[in-house]
Amino acid sequence: MLVVMHNHATPEDIDRVVKTIEEMGYTARPMPGGTRTTVGLIGNDGRVDGSRVEALPGVAEVIHVSKPYKQVSREWREENTVVTIAPGVSFGTSEIVLIAGPCSVESEEQIVDAARAVRAAGATALRGGAFKPRSSPYSFQGLGKRGLEFLALARQETGLPVVTEALDEEGAHLVAEYADCIQIGARNMQNYSLLRAVGKMRKPVLLKRGMAATITDLLMSAEYILAEGNDQVILCERGIRSFDTMTRNLFDLTAIPIVQRLSHLPMIADPSHGTGLRDKVIPMARAAVAAGADGIIVEVHPTPDRALSDGGQSLYPDQFARLVTELRAIGTAIGRSLATPAGTAATVGV
Amino acid sequence: MLVVMHNHATPEDIDRVVKTIEEMGYTARPMPGGTRTTVGLIGNDGRVDGSRVEALPGVAEVIHVSKPYKQVSREWREENTVVTIAPGVSFGTSEIVLIAGPCSVESEEQIVDAARAVRAAGATALRGGAFKPRSSPYSFQGLGKRGLEFLALARQETGLPVVTEALDEEGAHLVAEYADCIQIGARNMQNYSLLRAVGKMRKPVLLKRGMAATITDLLMSAEYILAEGNDQVILCERGIRSFDTMTRNLFDLTAIPIVQRLSHLPMIADPSHGTGLRDKVIPMARAAVAAGADGIIVEVHPTPDRALSDGGQSLYPDQFARLVTELRAIGTAIGRSLATPAGTAATVGV
Amino acid sequence: MLVVMHNHATPEDIDRVVKTIEEMGYTARPMPGGTRTTVGLIGNDGRVDGSRVEALPGVAEVIHVSKPYKQVSREWREENTVVTIAPGVSFGTSEIVLIAGPCSVESEEQIVDAARAVRAAGATALRGGAFKPRSSPYSFQGLGKRGLEFLALARQETGLPVVTEALDEEGAHLVAEYADCIQIGARNMQNYSLLRAVGKMRKPVLLKRGMAATITDLLMSAEYILAEGNDQVILCERGIRSFDTMTRNLFDLTAIPIVQRLSHLPMIADPSHGTGLRDKVIPMARAAVAAGADGIIVEVHPTPDRALSDGGQSLYPDQFARLVTELRAIGTAIGRSLATPAGTAATVGV
Amino acid sequence: MLVVMHNHATPEDIDRVVKTIEEMGYTARPMPGGTRTTVGLIGNDGRVDGSRVEALPGVAEVIHVSKPYKQVSREWREENTVVTIAPGVSFGTSEIVLIAGPCSVESEEQIVDAARAVRAAGATALRGGAFKPRSSPYSFQGLGKRGLEFLALARQETGLPVVTEALDEEGAHLVAEYADCIQIGARNMQNYSLLRAVGKMRKPVLLKRGMAATITDLLMSAEYILAEGNDQVILCERGIRSFDTMTRNLFDLTAIPIVQRLSHLPMIADPSHGTGLRDKVIPMARAAVAAGADGIIVEVHPTPDRALSDGGQSLYPDQFARLVTELRAIGTAIGRSLATPAGTAATVGV
Repeated sequence: MLVVMHNHATPEDIDRVVKTIEEMGYTARPMPGGTRTTVGLIGNDGRVDGSRVEALPGVAEVIHVSKPYKQVSREWREENTVVTIAPGVSFGTSEIVLIAGPCSVESEEQIVDAARAVRAAGATALRGGAFKPRSSPYSFQGLGKRGLEFLALARQETGLPVVTEALDEEGAHLVAEYADCIQIGARNMQNYSLLRAVGKMRKPVLLKRGMAATITDLLMSAEYILAEGNDQVILCERGIRSFDTMTRNLFDLTAIPIVQRLSHLPMIADPSHGTGLRDKVIPMARAAVAAGADGIIVEVHPTPDRALSDGGQSLYPDQFARLVTELRAIGTAIGRSLATPAGTAATVGV
Repeated sequence: MLVVMHNHATPEDIDRVVKTIEEMGYTARPMPGGTRTTVGLIGNDGRVDGSRVEALPGVAEVIHVSKPYKQVSREWREENTVVTIAPGVSFGTSEIVLIAGPCSVESEEQIVDAARAVRAAGATALRGGAFKPRSSPYSFQGLGKRGLEFLALARQETGLPVVTEALDEEGAHLVAEYADCIQIGARNMQNYSLLRAVGKMRKPVLLKRGMAATITDLLMSAEYILAEGNDQVILCERGIRSFDTMTRNLFDLTAIPIVQRLSHLPMIADPSHGTGLRDKVIPMARAAVAAGADGIIVEVHPTPDRALSDGGQSLYPDQFARLVTELRAIGTAIGRSLATPAGTAATVGV
Repeated sequence: MLVVMHNHATPEDIDRVVKTIEEMGYTARPMPGGTRTTVGLIGNDGRVDGSRVEALPGVAEVIHVSKPYKQVSREWREENTVVTIAPGVSFGTSEIVLIAGPCSVESEEQIVDAARAVRAAGATALRGGAFKPRSSPYSFQGLGKRGLEFLALARQETGLPVVTEALDEEGAHLVAEYADCIQIGARNMQNYSLLRAVGKMRKPVLLKRGMAATITDLLMSAEYILAEGNDQVILCERGIRSFDTMTRNLFDLTAIPIVQRLSHLPMIADPSHGTGLRDKVIPMARAAVAAGADGIIVEVHPTPDRALSDGGQSLYPDQFARLVTELRAIGTAIGRSLATPAGTAATVGV
Repeated sequence: MLVVMHNHATPEDIDRVVKTIEEMGYTARPMPGGTRTTVGLIGNDGRVDGSRVEALPGVAEVIHVSKPYKQVSREWREENTVVTIAPGVSFGTSEIVLIAGPCSVESEEQIVDAARAVRAAGATALRGGAFKPRSSPYSFQGLGKRGLEFLALARQETGLPVVTEALDEEGAHLVAEYADCIQIGARNMQNYSLLRAVGKMRKPVLLKRGMAATITDLLMSAEYILAEGNDQVILCERGIRSFDTMTRNLFDLTAIPIVQRLSHLPMIADPSHGTGLRDKVIPMARAAVAAGADGIIVEVHPTPDRALSDGGQSLYPDQFARLVTELRAIGTAIGRSLATPAGTAATVGV
């Protein structure tokens, strides 16, 4: 941490900063400059609360030099963390994992049909919401536990592991019982009670970036999960808020190489929520893979025009199949390959 | 809802939109224009999911004409809702309520001292966090239940009602037991499980705007609480994310008159989090009152330079006292007055 | 400037940074920390281009400690700059200056009527566009030179000095001939050719903040004008881009106290463009004054529903008159007063 | 245009809206709904100014259904506009054009070296700034006319056509004399005087998106150029302002397929300014091509660590050569190819 003093700060002001830093248990090193003095805090263990120093007279600015996260940082652990949600389905290797399926689980038939269609097209995992965070209390909120049961059936039919969202601690325990990976949605990215709860579980977690979250915020939220002992965390870019409302969100693909440099955790992208428009999902899924994503999660519905939610951004199964072909070629162009559906699936007759 | 067709949409495309609207149980009214046709959906009860229609061929755009919220709307209820958190402490009248106190409850002595100081200066309610949502898992997370007990003691000493945050359902029940108003913080504004939980309680709720929340989003989150039966909701502007990092957040004061026009719920402002800088809190608190806020919530600490959190944005008690004097004069300038501390306080020897 | 090294930077990396800084003509001071080394650059005169150092191996981040502006900074000149656009009409004193008038000059009658109305209500200066920057090439673009002549007539009739916009260098010379203050609009805030041109003139300049401009960007643009020798610059907050489209712009009132602390230049606010909605202009004009603005510029039209531009955000003259009364009371509450119309006006029979 | 009335609007209010629309020369069609009436304006030719109607009593909202632009719209012209800046170098076909070169022209040797290097690696056009818009008046501002002469020399040596920026009308005429395509930078995207000036020329224009510009704003600025008679316009995404300052700008790749759907003009991307960080330029250039960009413009410098500007985001020539190989493979994956350097170059001995 660096404490930048005003150019008119007095020696007493500088002294007070030094003493406060020492009171907090760290070492202070003043560095006089041409027009102002800067005081360095040595020994920062990531727990320093700068606001106490910021409030002292003569202080112009407090600059955090060390990152506020630790366990998620690549400085702390250099090699990639590989998160395996089912045998053969791993994030963080040279293989790119495709997660596909409908926005919501609507019925047994719908989710099983969707699972078969996306598996046939080349998906490696199944998505589908049983608990839906909807901005209106009057919208369809998901089938709940029954939706989880249908997802388990679809997995049994196709061999595809299941990724699905939990909205609270109770739901997280239910999801952990039925699914292979617990999704924490954008709206709950800073729901610290929920982050701590899934941090105590032994299930992989897919953590989506919040709509107003900086990359540092995203990594801090992941740090909550690792701090509780669970390092099986996949991060996901899904679009952030911006001033142009032509798309639902602004899909920030640069976040992919940035996160991969800062952290050892795998990073995937969601072009469906990232754009909110079906005909933009395809080019942006391609772009995500070209940018180096470790996977993509995309909405595919057997009959999008009858979907109970997000119909307008769901792909038709044949669109998804063509997309997979393009993604395979782009992967090859950058020295990567698509993960192949789980071997067990061969025995389930798809 | 209005469905705008492409200028090259065929009569079949238009027909399909009409039939889909009718299938959904509403009336469709096509309106041919100079270059394109628009189809109106009549009978929208606020539950229409536009994405199904948006996905149809020939559709250019779906425009929502009715607001997606209902019970929070001033169209639904014209007169102000008055939220009373303690005898004589009401939001939504011509009186402006001042809530003040430290960011966190740190000890019995600290919170009682703070309560006495802010009461003496003219505050009408006490704030102070027992459960703290911190971006780092390694930061001070609050005293929890013990913090609530200290807040109850401070109320007993000063007569000031207590506003404090809950982070999850379990915490909300605890807060309801000890405090007079449950705060839902910005990070949990779209934690729908928590919104539903407090919607079922019979305690006033202070709902803060999320960092990426539009005003519509804020009202939709309030709608969740009202939909469960609790209409004692106070809304609060506390700054949103913007591109200029010179302040912690961008304090959107225009939200005050906008919310007051759209909704019957009271709307207050938090200049401490809204700016994050002590010397900006004072002018922005004045501005909030001038813009018509029904109250302000401001951080005041007996010794800000020793605070465990947010020291840099907390006012000294004497700064707060001078601020109250200015706010009183500004209130008078626009035909309003400051709420006076609860009568019971007179008997507790402050 | 501080150069933060990676925690795995080698002694050679650090050495290379030191040598590069020395080659650039400055002094380097390495400061080893607990986990990484920081190298300070001493002697920064505001012309250091950090990107050269940023590109060196082992460098994690370059942090600018000194502000990139100089002549506009309060560190360079402590007392307020007072900008006088006409006898008795000065920005940067304890008096608050009210500039009012229509968006566009539409006819001689319209601008003279408007000038009389706003003067009667208490305005101290007249606004009105002759050159209009419109987002559509097919919209009304202003009366040009004829508009300037009408403005000069309105000044003659009322004694109010005139503030009006220039879009390019040629226009700036014309405006300087007819008006008392040249406005540079938000869209041209980083039109450096235009900034240099008005920097060479001897006319006061009103520089509006761009829609994506940070406060530092705004001050840097003002620095361009001062660098050419013209220090008669008034800054103006007029709303920035944000994600909520309910208002035309997001009015950032916190910018007022921030600019006033960082710079000696006067800072005013434009609640008309800042909100874009007539019924929001009034509370936000009050808020701007309460936040400490040195003036406000507001759109008033004799017949807003017939305006050729911005009718929806223009006040009726009687609304403006009531607003002035409120602003006077708020000014008093914070120890300031409204500037009074120029004395010469008394002789023109208004 | 649709005028949405308040639910409590009176028949007189509706009548007044109808009459105002008719006075403006259009047809009004009221459409009563369940809770409110909407009035359609028929015959909108793109010149309607909604603010006049917005100001009428009883009006809740004015919604623009027709796009405000016309000549740039794909509805107006279905097939792609192909912009040819030199024989064999065309934007808007299935070929992807690579423009590369340094941020600034620094010397004859530097620009000729750079041109040779990027040509050898596969670039089809040369970039390099002679007039530099710098946020500080004290930074290097470019070599001006001498820089243009050096660019012309580099073209003579390599056969690569030249793209370079103009900051004002005078500069645009100079650029047109020496270069093959006039660039209008992000800061001047709404400098309407400059847009009109290049609209009157017969030179291709590269128009970059402004930092706070919506896609509609970008298209409106292009409309200014087409309205003056010049339809040789290439659009360019180069990053917009966002709340995360980890990158210089937020690179909005979704803008590529959106613009290509709305407009017939070619759309390219600038990953150098879009990210501001050398190691992010490579993945994001790949992503831009995968998203469907008609070209990319990228900063390459013979010796980035000695660059006078933007050294930190310039590629080394060998990095660029590897990138071109990857882009070629990604192009193939989506059915496109890279444009090949101009045939004339074969005779200049590169």
